[in-house]
Amino acid sequence: MRGVIMDAPGEIRVDERATPTIEEPTDAIIKVAATCVCGSDLWPYRGVEDVDHAPMGHEYVGTVTEVGDEVTTVSVGDFVVGSFFASDNTCEICRAGYQSRCVHAHPMGAVGTQAEYARIPLADGTLVATPGHPDEELIPSLLAASDVLGTGWFGAVAAEVGHGKTVAVVGDGAVGLLGVLAAKHLGAERIIAMSRHPARQALAREFGATDIVVERGDEGVARIKDLTDGLGAHSVIEAVGTQESMLQAIRSARPGGHVGYVGVSHDVELPGLELFFSGVHLHGGPAPVRRFLPELIDLIWNREIDPGKVFDLTLPLADAAEGYRAMDERRATKVLLTV
Amino acid sequence: MRGVIMDAPGEIRVDERATPTIEEPTDAIIKVAATCVCGSDLWPYRGVEDVDHAPMGHEYVGTVTEVGDEVTTVSVGDFVVGSFFASDNTCEICRAGYQSRCVHAHPMGAVGTQAEYARIPLADGTLVATPGHPDEELIPSLLAASDVLGTGWFGAVAAEVGHGKTVAVVGDGAVGLLGVLAAKHLGAERIIAMSRHPARQALAREFGATDIVVERGDEGVARIKDLTDGLGAHSVIEAVGTQESMLQAIRSARPGGHVGYVGVSHDVELPGLELFFSGVHLHGGPAPVRRFLPELIDLIWNREIDPGKVFDLTLPLADAAEGYRAMDERRATKVLLTV
Repeated sequence: MRGVIMDAPGEIRVDERATPTIEEPTDAIIKVAATCVCGSDLWPYRGVEDVDHAPMGHEYVGTVTEVGDEVTTVSVGDFVVGSFFASDNTCEICRAGYQSRCVHAHPMGAVGTQAEYARIPLADGTLVATPGHPDEELIPSLLAASDVLGTGWFGAVAAEVGHGKTVAVVGDGAVGLLGVLAAKHLGAERIIAMSRHPARQALAREFGATDIVVERGDEGVARIKDLTDGLGAHSVIEAVGTQESMLQAIRSARPGGHVGYVGVSHDVELPGLELFFSGVHLHGGPAPVRRFLPELIDLIWNREIDPGKVFDLTLPLADAAEGYRAMDERRATKVLLTV
Repeated sequence: MRGVIMDAPGEIRVDERATPTIEEPTDAIIKVAATCVCGSDLWPYRGVEDVDHAPMGHEYVGTVTEVGDEVTTVSVGDFVVGSFFASDNTCEICRAGYQSRCVHAHPMGAVGTQAEYARIPLADGTLVATPGHPDEELIPSLLAASDVLGTGWFGAVAAEVGHGKTVAVVGDGAVGLLGVLAAKHLGAERIIAMSRHPARQALAREFGATDIVVERGDEGVARIKDLTDGLGAHSVIEAVGTQESMLQAIRSARPGGHVGYVGVSHDVELPGLELFFSGVHLHGGPAPVRRFLPELIDLIWNREIDPGKVFDLTLPLADAAEGYRAMDERRATKVLLTV
């Protein structure tokens, strides 16, 4: 089969890879319908993380073509959505809602779903079947649920977004934008998107942002304080993962407020004394997307949300290298690869 | 009046200070019945924080001797307990339960309650009167409520301690020990106290600890994992405030677990990537003791809890210097000063 390989930073190739087969009785094989390039794929692409001839991709939707003997909840022919961590969904950590930290978790990045087929470990605990075969127009939204929507949603839940609250969102990538969508759905009264990019500002407003703040760093924090009677936001969603963005998020929250951080932290060192006196709640990490998938699939299936709008470039798998380039150069927010 | 002054690190003097008077119509003056030396007073004593001829002390119980014209909830003659931050208890931050970050907060350390009298700003929002004049034996416990009990309690609440949970407590000072007591009262099933000090281990057990772990750092974390099926504790109370203790706390919590940290963080830099993948909730800071005071006073008044046991040395105010020395040398867990 054909699949994406990153040979080294900046070097993307679509080439033959071994077609996956059932290895464990809990596996399923899916024919990938669509996959995409993640903001986190840019870390190795830019040389911030090591990479050496690695299969790429951890987001996916597709049709089950084969199941292991122990798989009971999905069947051949089902259209499925899964998370970027395979999970058993039965251990104590999964039952508490932290499937991305399942005691048997497999990172799907190791599988490499930017490919024609993918082996999904722990299929029962990882995949959720859609109610039927989806219309073509739903596929981008279902694919978004696999990571960026689930991650933005977790950011909002981790930030304790709720009715009547003021929410600030740091980061205008796909995750930040979908954090706005999640905040709207979860009942936020006021949603402040921090963005200086006109197209992303427009999508943020479409998803429910009530205010746009273009300033960053301390100036951005001052604007948030101005908009919140000097107190700061009740909830802040951090969707970047840098020292600046984390401090911007913590400083934008009021004492006793909540910061949900889902940007993968790189070179971040949180100063203890500042964090202590901030009085904020801090929660985040790799999103337990599986926790939210049934609800997100329902919302998408019923056309209540349209998270697929974050995809602003669609390419065939064969053109994956151009997809990486477009995201690296910020010409695209999020690239969908059709398979 | 007589009061404690720290001239420089390690230099404690009890000397004449101006007797306080009403300065604002919201002030009250109290005759201090008992005060104490806080673990946080050791930071300047040891030269970790700057100090220069400062009045000392922020914990206090006593009798109201004078009130400003606008004070309505306490009267001359009332026996009162207050927090180490004065707060209006009416602003939006106070109403959310974060009185230590009240928009009008005054740190009581600036007042210096290790003295015969103290001026309490924002008396209505800061002081809680006891149901009557307390028996002598209740005074240590009421004094504990003013800071160490309220702080340990907040650590447990911030760590989301609750029924059926396993709780680990990092730190065996007065706050850690009272974190154990709080965890017991809040319904924890298993309470693991981390201590290598026999007398403190004994008090931890008396307060409700079910297990003692003497190891520290990575070995301590490994022991907590051993005791929790490899998962880590649901809730961890951090009551030290060093890099080692913070990492020990974070690493001792399971993914999705809660760390409540109340040790004042000094020279702490939290590594972002480790925190991200830990998946824990982190909350803490200066405890909003005022939130808990009414409940804590009730529990003490009704003899349901006896937090005063953390005081293992009682001295007259005139011997404050010996009290500081005993705590610095760890000869005493917590020193009560009678006035």
